Amino acid sequence: MPLTGQDVGKHNSRESCWVIVHGKAYDVTEFLPEHPGGPKIILKYAGKDATEEFDPIHPPDTLDKYLDKSKHLGPVDMSTVEKEERVESPEERERQEHIARMPILEQCYNLMDFEAVARKVMKKTAWAYYSSGADDEITMRENHSAFHKIWFRPRILVDVEKVDFSTTMLGTKVDIPFYVTATALGKLGNPEGEVVLTRAAKKHNVIQMIPTLASCSFDEIVDAAEGDQVQWLQLYVNKDREITKKIVQHAERRGCKGLFITVDAPQLGRREKDMRSKFTDVGSNVQAGSEVDKSQGAARAISSFIDPALSWKDIPWFKSITKMPIILKGVQRVEDVLLAVEAGVHGVVLSNHGGRQLDFARSGIEVLAEVMPVLRERGWDKRIEIYIDGGVRRATDIIKALCLGAKGVGIGRPFLFAMSAYGQPGVDRAMQLLKDEMEMNMRLIGCSSVDQLNPTLVDTRGLSMHTATVPVDTLGQTAYEPLVNPKEKAKL
Amino acid sequence: MPLTGQDVGKHNSRESCWVIVHGKAYDVTEFLPEHPGGPKIILKYAGKDATEEFDPIHPPDTLDKYLDKSKHLGPVDMSTVEKEERVESPEERERQEHIARMPILEQCYNLMDFEAVARKVMKKTAWAYYSSGADDEITMRENHSAFHKIWFRPRILVDVEKVDFSTTMLGTKVDIPFYVTATALGKLGNPEGEVVLTRAAKKHNVIQMIPTLASCSFDEIVDAAEGDQVQWLQLYVNKDREITKKIVQHAERRGCKGLFITVDAPQLGRREKDMRSKFTDVGSNVQAGSEVDKSQGAARAISSFIDPALSWKDIPWFKSITKMPIILKGVQRVEDVLLAVEAGVHGVVLSNHGGRQLDFARSGIEVLAEVMPVLRERGWDKRIEIYIDGGVRRATDIIKALCLGAKGVGIGRPFLFAMSAYGQPGVDRAMQLLKDEMEMNMRLIGCSSVDQLNPTLVDTRGLSMHTATVPVDTLGQTAYEPLVNPKEKAKL
Amino acid sequence: MPLTGQDVGKHNSRESCWVIVHGKAYDVTEFLPEHPGGPKIILKYAGKDATEEFDPIHPPDTLDKYLDKSKHLGPVDMSTVEKEERVESPEERERQEHIARMPILEQCYNLMDFEAVARKVMKKTAWAYYSSGADDEITMRENHSAFHKIWFRPRILVDVEKVDFSTTMLGTKVDIPFYVTATALGKLGNPEGEVVLTRAAKKHNVIQMIPTLASCSFDEIVDAAEGDQVQWLQLYVNKDREITKKIVQHAERRGCKGLFITVDAPQLGRREKDMRSKFTDVGSNVQAGSEVDKSQGAARAISSFIDPALSWKDIPWFKSITKMPIILKGVQRVEDVLLAVEAGVHGVVLSNHGGRQLDFARSGIEVLAEVMPVLRERGWDKRIEIYIDGGVRRATDIIKALCLGAKGVGIGRPFLFAMSAYGQPGVDRAMQLLKDEMEMNMRLIGCSSVDQLNPTLVDTRGLSMHTATVPVDTLGQTAYEPLVNPKEKAKL
Amino acid sequence: MPLTGQDVGKHNSRESCWVIVHGKAYDVTEFLPEHPGGPKIILKYAGKDATEEFDPIHPPDTLDKYLDKSKHLGPVDMSTVEKEERVESPEERERQEHIARMPILEQCYNLMDFEAVARKVMKKTAWAYYSSGADDEITMRENHSAFHKIWFRPRILVDVEKVDFSTTMLGTKVDIPFYVTATALGKLGNPEGEVVLTRAAKKHNVIQMIPTLASCSFDEIVDAAEGDQVQWLQLYVNKDREITKKIVQHAERRGCKGLFITVDAPQLGRREKDMRSKFTDVGSNVQAGSEVDKSQGAARAISSFIDPALSWKDIPWFKSITKMPIILKGVQRVEDVLLAVEAGVHGVVLSNHGGRQLDFARSGIEVLAEVMPVLRERGWDKRIEIYIDGGVRRATDIIKALCLGAKGVGIGRPFLFAMSAYGQPGVDRAMQLLKDEMEMNMRLIGCSSVDQLNPTLVDTRGLSMHTATVPVDTLGQTAYEPLVNPKEKAKL
Repeated sequence: MPLTGQDVGKHNSRESCWVIVHGKAYDVTEFLPEHPGGPKIILKYAGKDATEEFDPIHPPDTLDKYLDKSKHLGPVDMSTVEKEERVESPEERERQEHIARMPILEQCYNLMDFEAVARKVMKKTAWAYYSSGADDEITMRENHSAFHKIWFRPRILVDVEKVDFSTTMLGTKVDIPFYVTATALGKLGNPEGEVVLTRAAKKHNVIQMIPTLASCSFDEIVDAAEGDQVQWLQLYVNKDREITKKIVQHAERRGCKGLFITVDAPQLGRREKDMRSKFTDVGSNVQAGSEVDKSQGAARAISSFIDPALSWKDIPWFKSITKMPIILKGVQRVEDVLLAVEAGVHGVVLSNHGGRQLDFARSGIEVLAEVMPVLRERGWDKRIEIYIDGGVRRATDIIKALCLGAKGVGIGRPFLFAMSAYGQPGVDRAMQLLKDEMEMNMRLIGCSSVDQLNPTLVDTRGLSMHTATVPVDTLGQTAYEPLVNPKEKAKL
Repeated sequence: MPLTGQDVGKHNSRESCWVIVHGKAYDVTEFLPEHPGGPKIILKYAGKDATEEFDPIHPPDTLDKYLDKSKHLGPVDMSTVEKEERVESPEERERQEHIARMPILEQCYNLMDFEAVARKVMKKTAWAYYSSGADDEITMRENHSAFHKIWFRPRILVDVEKVDFSTTMLGTKVDIPFYVTATALGKLGNPEGEVVLTRAAKKHNVIQMIPTLASCSFDEIVDAAEGDQVQWLQLYVNKDREITKKIVQHAERRGCKGLFITVDAPQLGRREKDMRSKFTDVGSNVQAGSEVDKSQGAARAISSFIDPALSWKDIPWFKSITKMPIILKGVQRVEDVLLAVEAGVHGVVLSNHGGRQLDFARSGIEVLAEVMPVLRERGWDKRIEIYIDGGVRRATDIIKALCLGAKGVGIGRPFLFAMSAYGQPGVDRAMQLLKDEMEMNMRLIGCSSVDQLNPTLVDTRGLSMHTATVPVDTLGQTAYEPLVNPKEKAKL
Repeated sequence: MPLTGQDVGKHNSRESCWVIVHGKAYDVTEFLPEHPGGPKIILKYAGKDATEEFDPIHPPDTLDKYLDKSKHLGPVDMSTVEKEERVESPEERERQEHIARMPILEQCYNLMDFEAVARKVMKKTAWAYYSSGADDEITMRENHSAFHKIWFRPRILVDVEKVDFSTTMLGTKVDIPFYVTATALGKLGNPEGEVVLTRAAKKHNVIQMIPTLASCSFDEIVDAAEGDQVQWLQLYVNKDREITKKIVQHAERRGCKGLFITVDAPQLGRREKDMRSKFTDVGSNVQAGSEVDKSQGAARAISSFIDPALSWKDIPWFKSITKMPIILKGVQRVEDVLLAVEAGVHGVVLSNHGGRQLDFARSGIEVLAEVMPVLRERGWDKRIEIYIDGGVRRATDIIKALCLGAKGVGIGRPFLFAMSAYGQPGVDRAMQLLKDEMEMNMRLIGCSSVDQLNPTLVDTRGLSMHTATVPVDTLGQTAYEPLVNPKEKAKL
Repeated sequence: MPLTGQDVGKHNSRESCWVIVHGKAYDVTEFLPEHPGGPKIILKYAGKDATEEFDPIHPPDTLDKYLDKSKHLGPVDMSTVEKEERVESPEERERQEHIARMPILEQCYNLMDFEAVARKVMKKTAWAYYSSGADDEITMRENHSAFHKIWFRPRILVDVEKVDFSTTMLGTKVDIPFYVTATALGKLGNPEGEVVLTRAAKKHNVIQMIPTLASCSFDEIVDAAEGDQVQWLQLYVNKDREITKKIVQHAERRGCKGLFITVDAPQLGRREKDMRSKFTDVGSNVQAGSEVDKSQGAARAISSFIDPALSWKDIPWFKSITKMPIILKGVQRVEDVLLAVEAGVHGVVLSNHGGRQLDFARSGIEVLAEVMPVLRERGWDKRIEIYIDGGVRRATDIIKALCLGAKGVGIGRPFLFAMSAYGQPGVDRAMQLLKDEMEMNMRLIGCSSVDQLNPTLVDTRGLSMHTATVPVDTLGQTAYEPLVNPKEKAKL
């Protein structure tokens, strides 16, 4: 006989805490102190149905993996569980209105358009998690503006009737030189999560990088791939290397063709927009009394396992446990690219983690312009594949990266926003728009294939001038009170 | 006996599609799939009078040229054709109000003023077609800002009582060193179309370049010229070279004095403002059902014939079919100017097509500053005439270009806007304003004739610094959500 | 027996045009076509009292000098002249309200404050004449921003108890290194006109430069000087050199100590804000019918006599007619400073005429930084005194100019604005504020006298970067329509 | 028998002026002309209770120190003193509303947040004193923006599990490389004043620098320290050196471990926002009649004793009167750092006094980048400790300073704002946030201790480009009237 809502409802305290997830009850009393996101967020659902909050943050196999079977209390008769009547907040009401008035998909003409729509129709906390960056978000914004410092020197009178912008990445033939880079918590944007991206990547023949922190389980994402569709694995290295080993070898067995080890995140960043988003209903917090709220946004909650001690010494071990090509994701200066070559890895991604880690880290495209001449000078430019990610929004951005020597670029947030607003058709259209732009702009720059792209086609003189287009320091500006001219007397 | 509205009205489907244009009926059923702008736009007028939509996009000889005589169904008794009652949109009502309150012509003091007025009084789609640029419109805006990076080093105490700013272009004496460059679809702005510009050019003794994609037919524009008025031909090269040959040789016979071959447009650009403008009444589109709308704005609709395979190899052929001087329009780097000299053409226009093709192409004035020193070093600066276009709005812009070595500059949009707002008097005043500014500023820079203009009169140190005045990335900015300081509690 | 209002009122046409000025009638019928400001502005007052419009534009001796005695018709019984009932415009009503609520003088803490107040309380046309600049007013605004590109390298631990910032200019001891530069039409701002500035200059022991185009007559301004107060003469050179000679020699006789020949204005500039200001009541203009309005703002109206043929060849003649030191006002490049030294003049003012002539002329302070090293290299820096004007608003601006080698700076508009808003106490306070700032900042830079100011105290690396702080192109920006993200569907 | 309110109330004029402070009456008639802040501010309270105005500006021992005992009139029966009924201004009402709705402390995520909150809840005059800077406040704002011109070149794959960011300053071990720098008038922000900062500094084990112009007395601040807590003394040098000697030797006796002599303030700056704040109720001022108001904001009132004659010659004397290490606070160019080394002092603070003294002084971080290479070249970099202050708001700012060679940074205003808004918990949280950021960012830059920070970790190419991110010239911008496009006719 299944449990009833009333049964579960009695266990609504720190002393005895049961929760319902997907129609089953679990006793998490002992687990509370171990919960990476803190006990408080669980206690909010003590004795209640937590499914909605649980889903986007946890892959479906989480409870099986991490909660002892003895704590699995079995099915609940959901008809006996009281539905919480939610009072719709004005904010939510406004969001619903935005959803009702969403532009049709055909009105999105570029990748920024999806972001503008998503911002209005996504839940506030989800939007905050996806869109936030480190500190003042200056690196986050610099990532895109950096491309605006590069101008073209196009060739004319070249036969560009047939334009072929396919290329290869780590040996895989792709239709266009971008891949879907790893981003966490896909179900925040779409109930199906990352598999939506898998299907779109298949359709456009590009590679998807599977994130460690996906909402879907790794196997779900691999299962969603079709035919010879290629996927890579993004890896946060666990303090417990055995777990890491298991993950890597499982991925290799399941056919992953590249291991991208994240090296720019010994600890996941402080993203204030994300942190701030949880204070929407401040009232409750005030009553928290002496118990200080330790939670620091979604990012910190899900990443406590990451090993900050990871170092160059670990690279040989990775080479010993897998045959997949190894790529370091998050390299940020030429000195470290040289070390990477010497360490014998197959590639690097010049990346600052989408501006979500160290603010004032330079953009991938700028580091690329620093790296390639040094590699070429040493004759090392063929010994390693260089990728960049961060801020790519236009085919011209991709072309600029390839002109400067990148093998390809990773794109993350734009597809998340397209998925959040329009589901798979959104991602499909986003990719198609990039292809349309790509064909057009390859023609306009006077190249009919990607191997013709070269440094003489771009003017990068402005690239190193950080000061010039430093994005506005919003916080500082709103905090600063401008000088004023003398005030008139008050009206009598 | 003429057809009646009822007769035509029956043929209102894809299966049998008749339309009325200028009081005559045409059977376009078979033509539907061949229509460069897609069948959908025609079907909207199936069984109806399409004149108003037809006119600005098609020269009057279009139907005679492209539709078999057998499909010309003869005159319609227009009194029997039901007038569509248009419900005036709030947008249109607002526009009519703007028209009623238009500033008088004398209040326009500079070329930007015409644009500001035109923006309010033009039909939205027409404005979108004229004003739009590629992608983020950064090159489009850079074109004018680039002039702002050049400052003057004027001479004093020079006798400037008499100032002569006439010059010659390809051997033709002109009163002021600009020409009216080619722009498409003049009837979007004025029912008479490009002939308005012809008359104004005559009045001010400047050269008009006749566009391939004019709303008026080529012959109408030539016929509108008076006396020894000089015109040039702008050419989009057709995939079918025989058509191109016919056009070129016809132009030469009719007296054209220069052949400007467009080389920066193997494919006409994606201009999102233009594309977006067709979604004013979204409702209808939603019902389109499964039929995806392929139309991509006016630009793409009218340009499918352009040959993307055009290359340097074609230049000798052009020299073989005409004696007109040949000028390459749209050259964008010094390497290609050198190739042009070697190919034996008479001139180049350093241009990025008004920012309507490749975004992040550099401005003509910047490329000029790169080109001239190289030409002078080789002693080639007299072997070719260098023109620029894009962003010219002030006589000081013209003077800057001439100081740097240009023979003259092309001006396009400003005259379109002046024509759209005020008709020929508008264009006339725009040209007169340029002459007034020219006289004033020649005096102030201390030169009494254009041959005195030279590089020591300008300070171009800031010209190559793209980052500094990169125009704002509007899309990105409106999409980005700024950080916020903590919010106050809600009012109780 | 005096004339009556009725008598005069009959002569209200082009055929017979009388006007009343200061209680006397004049027959200006024959003078109409010769009037530098055009006949139209006079005809507006045909048969009426024109005093109010006449006064600020014409020195009181104008009618005596330029209208034949036979046209002086004698006194009018003003009690018989109908007072025009003016309907107060909403604009004027608003202005009156601003006047009622003006901040008290003590609330003005810097020179910008006076401008902010004046803008609200001045008549629109007067404000337009004073505040306007050439074309896009980019040079006008650059003048002040240029100072913002220069930063200090102050010295510490220097005894600055006593700070002496007096200096000499052309041999005259002054209390602070600025002079009141020449500005036209002082009565637009204050009914007393330029003599207000004379008195304030006396009080603060600084030199006043008397403008050719003053509202007061030259003699009135000289008469207003007290004791050994020093004045200079600013000269627009007349096409008729005899007139010029008379002016110069009269000035020398009356004690002027310097002759500043304006060399940057062969023709007075087009200032669109000024031109635009006359269209406040557009209605009347519309009825003008066929007669095109030729007037181009106050500036053009008053300057038709200026000789555009003035050249280096004229300098010896000036030296032959006067013993006053000769200074060229409006030099704008180092080449011309060298010519000036060779021509044997005593000084130059590096100036662009307050941004009112050639737009994109560089700021005086930037030209100064170009000029001084060249002079020093040749050992010519003691052979000539270098002044600058334009954009000076702070004592730090003055200090920067002196560090770079200027002997002093001219300040114009700020005193006009102070006078327009607060009369002489305003000018007095403005000068006192500069002295307060000067004492403070001399201390803070670590110098106790002006001869200690030197180039090592400033960091000018940013000075030549025009692109960086190019003031915003307002016209272009308001004319440009930003891209937009997709629009939501209309509300149902 | 104590005095009554009526007794005191009779002495309400310049001729006989008594005031009540903390329940005691004082006869200040003879003191009036000597009051550094001018007599007027005292006369406002003649015959009344002045405690509230007195407190933040004067340390509690002021009256004992500076007013002869004979003028101490003894206790007042406060029940007989009439309470002034204050009419609450709309401004004050708004402020009270802001206080009621203040965000909870946990919603402050960075140091700018405290400023944003403080701005709304502080009294206007207090806010004006703390937040104001010199002239156009361009240096004040540049201080923070200068950090934005420096970007990181982080290392990856470095073991950063344990991060230690403690360091030493003048031999004292501190937990994090900042100290609480001296700021005046702490009671303007919090009734307890500077001791709040003392307690917070203890809690986080950082050093507090005690200001000469504190609201608390020096001894109160020292008394508030606990255990071996280290404090430094900031010194404005008095014209009367005996007073200075007494202060210094007293500080040494009480255990201060460093003497920071302010060298950038021979006179305290003009801060217009501060000066302007006193005109809130302009009415009263208007009635001031002939007596001109000389007061110039709080800064000038409290600083008249500072000796502008202080010079390098005084340094040996300081070394003779104390054994504390001597540090010059306010050095602004490399030449003076070299002099400081030669003078044998122990350190310098590269500082522009928080932008409150000389506008257009360069930021400390920029001067640091100029200074360190010169010191290293001479091998002098170990002979002196270099500190900077000004604009530090983020741990990344601290890291940048240390990378460039600073020993530590001073932070002032942010703690004042935190204290003003939230009292000690605010300061505590502000310091904790810096520690959180510090740990995160040390990891992200790839360093586990501060001695690993070095110049290769930063990209400073943009640091010297003042023009690029010159903060906006607010006053100039609001004063300037933008050009406008032609106006439409008025609506009929």
